[in-house]
Amino acid sequence: MPRKGKAAVYDAPNQPFRVREYPVRDVKSGEVLVRVTMKTICRSDIHSYQGHRPNPCPGILGHEIIGLIDQIGVDVPDDMRGEALAPGDRITWTEYFHDGPSYYKDVHDMPQKAEGVRKYGHDLAEEDPHFLGGFAEYCYLQPGTGIVKLPAELSDAEATPLNCGIATMMAVVEATEVTEGDRVVVQGLGLLGLYGCAIAKARGAAIVIGLDVVPQRLAMAKRFGADHVLDITGIPAQEQIAAVRAFCPPDGADAAIEVCGVPTAVPTGVRMLRTGGRYTIGGLVNPDANFTVDGNDLLKRWITLRGVHNYHPRHLVEALDFVMANRNRFPFADIVDAVFSLDQLDDAFRKASEREVLRAAIVP
Amino acid sequence: MPRKGKAAVYDAPNQPFRVREYPVRDVKSGEVLVRVTMKTICRSDIHSYQGHRPNPCPGILGHEIIGLIDQIGVDVPDDMRGEALAPGDRITWTEYFHDGPSYYKDVHDMPQKAEGVRKYGHDLAEEDPHFLGGFAEYCYLQPGTGIVKLPAELSDAEATPLNCGIATMMAVVEATEVTEGDRVVVQGLGLLGLYGCAIAKARGAAIVIGLDVVPQRLAMAKRFGADHVLDITGIPAQEQIAAVRAFCPPDGADAAIEVCGVPTAVPTGVRMLRTGGRYTIGGLVNPDANFTVDGNDLLKRWITLRGVHNYHPRHLVEALDFVMANRNRFPFADIVDAVFSLDQLDDAFRKASEREVLRAAIVP
Amino acid sequence: MPRKGKAAVYDAPNQPFRVREYPVRDVKSGEVLVRVTMKTICRSDIHSYQGHRPNPCPGILGHEIIGLIDQIGVDVPDDMRGEALAPGDRITWTEYFHDGPSYYKDVHDMPQKAEGVRKYGHDLAEEDPHFLGGFAEYCYLQPGTGIVKLPAELSDAEATPLNCGIATMMAVVEATEVTEGDRVVVQGLGLLGLYGCAIAKARGAAIVIGLDVVPQRLAMAKRFGADHVLDITGIPAQEQIAAVRAFCPPDGADAAIEVCGVPTAVPTGVRMLRTGGRYTIGGLVNPDANFTVDGNDLLKRWITLRGVHNYHPRHLVEALDFVMANRNRFPFADIVDAVFSLDQLDDAFRKASEREVLRAAIVP
Amino acid sequence: MPRKGKAAVYDAPNQPFRVREYPVRDVKSGEVLVRVTMKTICRSDIHSYQGHRPNPCPGILGHEIIGLIDQIGVDVPDDMRGEALAPGDRITWTEYFHDGPSYYKDVHDMPQKAEGVRKYGHDLAEEDPHFLGGFAEYCYLQPGTGIVKLPAELSDAEATPLNCGIATMMAVVEATEVTEGDRVVVQGLGLLGLYGCAIAKARGAAIVIGLDVVPQRLAMAKRFGADHVLDITGIPAQEQIAAVRAFCPPDGADAAIEVCGVPTAVPTGVRMLRTGGRYTIGGLVNPDANFTVDGNDLLKRWITLRGVHNYHPRHLVEALDFVMANRNRFPFADIVDAVFSLDQLDDAFRKASEREVLRAAIVP
Repeated sequence: MPRKGKAAVYDAPNQPFRVREYPVRDVKSGEVLVRVTMKTICRSDIHSYQGHRPNPCPGILGHEIIGLIDQIGVDVPDDMRGEALAPGDRITWTEYFHDGPSYYKDVHDMPQKAEGVRKYGHDLAEEDPHFLGGFAEYCYLQPGTGIVKLPAELSDAEATPLNCGIATMMAVVEATEVTEGDRVVVQGLGLLGLYGCAIAKARGAAIVIGLDVVPQRLAMAKRFGADHVLDITGIPAQEQIAAVRAFCPPDGADAAIEVCGVPTAVPTGVRMLRTGGRYTIGGLVNPDANFTVDGNDLLKRWITLRGVHNYHPRHLVEALDFVMANRNRFPFADIVDAVFSLDQLDDAFRKASEREVLRAAIVP
Repeated sequence: MPRKGKAAVYDAPNQPFRVREYPVRDVKSGEVLVRVTMKTICRSDIHSYQGHRPNPCPGILGHEIIGLIDQIGVDVPDDMRGEALAPGDRITWTEYFHDGPSYYKDVHDMPQKAEGVRKYGHDLAEEDPHFLGGFAEYCYLQPGTGIVKLPAELSDAEATPLNCGIATMMAVVEATEVTEGDRVVVQGLGLLGLYGCAIAKARGAAIVIGLDVVPQRLAMAKRFGADHVLDITGIPAQEQIAAVRAFCPPDGADAAIEVCGVPTAVPTGVRMLRTGGRYTIGGLVNPDANFTVDGNDLLKRWITLRGVHNYHPRHLVEALDFVMANRNRFPFADIVDAVFSLDQLDDAFRKASEREVLRAAIVP
Repeated sequence: MPRKGKAAVYDAPNQPFRVREYPVRDVKSGEVLVRVTMKTICRSDIHSYQGHRPNPCPGILGHEIIGLIDQIGVDVPDDMRGEALAPGDRITWTEYFHDGPSYYKDVHDMPQKAEGVRKYGHDLAEEDPHFLGGFAEYCYLQPGTGIVKLPAELSDAEATPLNCGIATMMAVVEATEVTEGDRVVVQGLGLLGLYGCAIAKARGAAIVIGLDVVPQRLAMAKRFGADHVLDITGIPAQEQIAAVRAFCPPDGADAAIEVCGVPTAVPTGVRMLRTGGRYTIGGLVNPDANFTVDGNDLLKRWITLRGVHNYHPRHLVEALDFVMANRNRFPFADIVDAVFSLDQLDDAFRKASEREVLRAAIVP
Repeated sequence: MPRKGKAAVYDAPNQPFRVREYPVRDVKSGEVLVRVTMKTICRSDIHSYQGHRPNPCPGILGHEIIGLIDQIGVDVPDDMRGEALAPGDRITWTEYFHDGPSYYKDVHDMPQKAEGVRKYGHDLAEEDPHFLGGFAEYCYLQPGTGIVKLPAELSDAEATPLNCGIATMMAVVEATEVTEGDRVVVQGLGLLGLYGCAIAKARGAAIVIGLDVVPQRLAMAKRFGADHVLDITGIPAQEQIAAVRAFCPPDGADAAIEVCGVPTAVPTGVRMLRTGGRYTIGGLVNPDANFTVDGNDLLKRWITLRGVHNYHPRHLVEALDFVMANRNRFPFADIVDAVFSLDQLDDAFRKASEREVLRAAIVP
């Protein structure tokens, strides 16, 4: 008798999810069928759900997913660490997939920018293989997905954000060239900012300074490695700059990272830097994020400004290494602070969108 | 009526090649069928032919190949530059292919070291698709091959060595971090050494010093960018070092490249370097290439010693760019100094192995 | 009898230079006395002369200077290449000097940004040692100046711009990470732009595209390595971008360099780049050079934007290497297209400021 | 009345130290007079003392020194962090000094390799300023010394090794390019090895594996960040390699560091690496440290082998940052496990040379 699986389907923006069943077929060559054990709601899922950006309907949202291998197709290689995969293995995987050659992948080692790259959580649910998103019982991993086996000691709550927030911040902090002894500013202490603080510390930053306007986030950032936090509610840019510079003698911070989504934070953050400082834009994910800077200041002070979006498959491997090496140092498990069932997805999205919870997890 | 194509088959080491016919079938998904227009005999083909290293028999040797696209399978992407491919296009391609994920490819961006990577010219001729080497009328490009279209103005003789010697040396000189103003030593002025001189100059080297024992090579190196050449026949290491250092005040060369295949050249070359100098091993392709160095000297002088083998697909793109940008500066076309037909392959191999010719080309 | 030397003194903005005599004393420890043989008028000299930026009066302008060593103080070390200095040697030197430890010099290897760094051509002429600028018969090099001996075959006209325009562009093109095969845009084809084109080619750029509005500059750029030049007079940004992209398939240029001094060129140039492209601001030397960019575009396309100002002493060594290695490739000597005597300095400044000449040289 | 100060003078190898007095004069321009508060005995002091390497006699050994500023000469700049210096400040400083331009300093940013660089603890005690070593009450810091102020919360025992072992290992681990997620082997767990383990962890290494033959060192390494330690007493190279590789699936360690002083450790360590791995020689400080490697293996596996000796002044700043940021993570204070007075120096040297103590400190 053919198998079936449940999915919470997104029919239209701002409409309740509807739980439906779809057929679960045998894997094709190159595919891996996963029985999902946990998924978390990402801010971008909320953007899609609220209709702020187009997503195919009806569809299955969600890309922060982990699960157990149910079935493995022929020609499925080892995981990215070179470990053989077998049914029952608990795995995470890149939130995107791309198979075959590509200009950006082959020439510039940027598979995340390959033409035709696809992302989990962005397909029509009505078409085979139906299960390509997180809010469902199953997910079919497609050829060109980077898979990593999860160590047994890592909890589901620690593991689920790996393939989105943590891997992205591995790329962001790497691009910022944070190294031993650096003084690093993190503008915005949402999930990305918390991971940013922790990763900067893990790479040897001497001082991490976190900026936000939400007291709970500031408190959480101290637990995620921030040495100093500043509540910038109502604080003019000039005073923010002075406050950061007071922590970074003689001439400012070595690096700053934008993960607050506010374009004007960029020129403010740039002025927190010393000559030769590096600035990375990691949070301006919405279009028309215009800001104005003084090119003469960039020139005279040898500032480097860089944008980073998505991540390379190796960053997922590094994300796992980072969490495993720092589990006792930073409270990764506390990020997931609410758990819901698939039937409670409406409630979970509401609470996540209203920021009542930090990271909402869904379990079967 | 089914098509057939000819191939010069290698049955056993040191035996004459035998020209046979194999069926030419329609391409499968991901394959490209190429009608070969030119191939050249690489030193490694000669090593296989002479039995110095194992190669499947009967087989079709040769990996330095160019040709015209005959047929393109479904799912074949654009070339690595993002240009659409069509029948009739003249192309070159990576000498190796690998499809699907891999630890070295995905995590370390070293597709050339992916587990299971295969190389053209290393398969049994009796099995489908038969044509996977150069000394034949056709070649089936497999999924995971990096393809680049060739500009019309580039002659076949200029284009054929791109995917082996030139691309390899792009990797070697890049790993040597040769940059504007460097003084660079090239030990060995065979084909790799000639390209090494030219690429070093093209990257801005101020002075390139070439070392060899063959007068014709020394003369050719001057045409390929060497500012100084030294005939080291019978010259003790200490004198070679002094001669190079005289060209590189105040304290030696910035970089040196080994492409002579002689292990003892390494410690000699290292002593030609200034403190902080870089040394790349590019020619020790045979096993047990032992050499002895003084680790205290490496330590005190901050020497970097690095091995490089094969190349990344992007190096093939860069190789083409390099030749196109420097065609009037270096006599690339003169590298191929003898042309043979497929029937004359025995003669071509003999002349190539006895170094009567610099690079023997085979045309249909 | 004490020696005296002449200088063309700058008394106030827009006033005629007055030739006066000052005493020439014996060198102190660490000083080198140079008999100036040529100096050229830099655009920044004109800015000072016209009163657009403050400069001590009465003073001796000019920092692009070469000359013959007249006297060497005790404790003067070898030149930066490690060659001993002697009276009679013809030399160039860094346009700035700084002696002793400094945060930026010692910790960040940015001596050009050391606190208290001083520049030749920016001191009062009435105070000892009087001769610290170019438009005079002598110049006293101070401790902390990087000196390089000039090869005999290099003409004065080729050598004089080394320590300003060429060394600066060595730093700019290096920061742009221009390498083998790159497609590079240069916005602005004044002196810096011409050198930028040539250096990009010398580092292996496959295609250099120069943009300007002055036909003579566009023509000159072709001689300095530009493969394509675009007269952008009246051309909207969108069309400039399309024109550049047509030369750079499949997705734009690898790098772009701003040396036109126009802030709005930056967002235009950024959109000429491929994903992962690098942009360097090298010409926005005047304050308040504001421009507006879309941070979301920088983020999605992984753009790197970097400012560069002045240069490291090693760039002067590299500048000399670059010119020596490329003298037959680019017409460096043609840059200096008018020669004046010290008495004709007013005329020289007028012609230079009105761009009647490309680079005006002054000889004793 | 003129001041005098005591010093434990080294008259000849293996002779008892003799405590003598020398005059303490006012500082000259650029000098800083320091009242020494602690110094530690470095392994290289023992080598000098035992006559294994030449050192001027009579002299004052010792370069691992901290102290309080007694007097500051004119023209002494701020410390390397840009903080003003004043009498009474507790400071550390680079173990070497070099003033003025130099080829290696100015062109290659390697001041530690400048021609004529001098090291504290390597001068004749009979000549002015007498106090240029550690085992004395005073030390005259010379122009060209990089100085850093010490934070009050850092104990003398934590601070004294900064300018030798810790700063050196900052350079070694940086050259090894250790980054987030790396698996790192440290061969030799003496003082350098302990710091190497800790710095590798602080830079984000996922797994650090320490090798030694002394059980106490293996135990100490676990406290300094080693995840795994291997007692290699009597273990053949092949088994060491297998043991390390078992910790580093799928194909070996990312990096290895030699700080054991045994040349044959190098080829063994190289075979512990994955393709593309990095190996740094940090401990082969004695001449004729010959080892033999297979260049073909280096080539095929893209191995990088690098020597590192001494450090850049910025590494001292980074060393301080590292210790301040990781004081609660690693037991730096426990390194100094025995304290002696200047009069007990013979006893201290004996215990240090017989490895009865890990790091012997001398206090006034």
